[in-house]
Amino acid sequence: MNQHRTIRKYSNQAIAPELLDQIIETTCRASNTGNMQAYSIVVTTDAAIKQQLAPAHFNQPMVTQAPILLTFCADFNRFTKWCEQRQAEPGYNNFQSFMAGAIDATIAAQTFCIAAESVGLGICYLGTTTYNAKEIIDILKLPKLVVPITTITVGYPEIIPEQTDRLPLAAVVHSETYHEFSSTDIDQLYSEKENNKFYKDFVAENNKETLAQVFTDIRYSKKNNELFSGKFLEVLKEQGFIDLKIENPPGN
Amino acid sequence: MNQHRTIRKYSNQAIAPELLDQIIETTCRASNTGNMQAYSIVVTTDAAIKQQLAPAHFNQPMVTQAPILLTFCADFNRFTKWCEQRQAEPGYNNFQSFMAGAIDATIAAQTFCIAAESVGLGICYLGTTTYNAKEIIDILKLPKLVVPITTITVGYPEIIPEQTDRLPLAAVVHSETYHEFSSTDIDQLYSEKENNKFYKDFVAENNKETLAQVFTDIRYSKKNNELFSGKFLEVLKEQGFIDLKIENPPGN
Repeated sequence: MNQHRTIRKYSNQAIAPELLDQIIETTCRASNTGNMQAYSIVVTTDAAIKQQLAPAHFNQPMVTQAPILLTFCADFNRFTKWCEQRQAEPGYNNFQSFMAGAIDATIAAQTFCIAAESVGLGICYLGTTTYNAKEIIDILKLPKLVVPITTITVGYPEIIPEQTDRLPLAAVVHSETYHEFSSTDIDQLYSEKENNKFYKDFVAENNKETLAQVFTDIRYSKKNNELFSGKFLEVLKEQGFIDLKIENPPGN
Repeated sequence: MNQHRTIRKYSNQAIAPELLDQIIETTCRASNTGNMQAYSIVVTTDAAIKQQLAPAHFNQPMVTQAPILLTFCADFNRFTKWCEQRQAEPGYNNFQSFMAGAIDATIAAQTFCIAAESVGLGICYLGTTTYNAKEIIDILKLPKLVVPITTITVGYPEIIPEQTDRLPLAAVVHSETYHEFSSTDIDQLYSEKENNKFYKDFVAENNKETLAQVFTDIRYSKKNNELFSGKFLEVLKEQGFIDLKIENPPGN
């Protein structure tokens, strides 16, 4: 786990179906909300479906190159159907249930990743899943009360890259209660990252003054975040998890 | 990982601070959104603060009995502060950023759990965190753009219980695209659970006709889910992640 790297290039070696089943079996042992298992995993290996999914993931090459793509979804469809067949009135078409499902799906995803890495496989998370959830829902035929949360590509590594940096623990860990950051704290916590040659080159290549500007202007811009916020809220509404009126519609 | 159990009773053995640091170091190696590390971990060991937190977690005994409580939060406060100090315009006060932070926090939480279990510790997830997020925010002094997602209690196990059941993989795994469940599928997938003596006794003790009714009427009722949906949406608004008008206010 200390050797974790995101793997974006995979060899031609196939993943044995029995191995995949074992990893998924381990995944399903993970904690989940009230043992309702409010998630589902769509395992895609078919080249034509991967090709259809690629644009939803901004054509990141891993999507078509990886032997297997797994879409982890918040899922109260199965549980609701069971309740309806058992004279029980389900009440899972709401935001709190969505959160429970999203947490269950993410716990399952990370359990899958750690189990896969423990047998020599490499993984990559695709953050694009919540951006283009609507398109993914259509392609994977997800019914109401099912929303895709994250996607993982998996395969045997072709190239094992250097580990990426992390902030000092003091940036992430708070003792007893939250300790707000002073401007000196921020300078100290980000200094190693900002003085890293890789990031200095990255800032120069992008013609920016600071590393933060690469994030705000290019990688995770306000405009895109607002656009995708509006799209994802719309998806939660269509899939039956919220019933909201958007006061200041984002992305308009 | 195949031996995972939720541990609710802890021995008196303390967790060495160096061991906790190592586990958190491992936790921070996990994947996260764009290496922004949009999460934070509040580590609570102080008995008085645990006592304050207990009602927010419905006084589940683990909260005060466990040596350590960790609250994993979606956090765009630190990143936003960094952007502001670096002539960059942050755009993370929106729902998409909340989702990224919630996913990062949950990936970190599950990584923590697996690392902790690998050294003989036992963990328990508290699903109450999103129910009473407001109270937790006040006690842990979480600023805007920080929202608690899940809480883990951790300690050396006093009692190691039997493993709980899981649904057959066919309930969770879908090949290529989602396969909708017929009523026969539902009957088959839930039959082992429904015929389990533990659950049969559980239904009888609760004076219900079916296991599903224990969930819908007692454990995860529509009324409570709607109440806590409204509360959590209100929290997202107060913490600055959404700006929504609730059309049909849940819980009223």
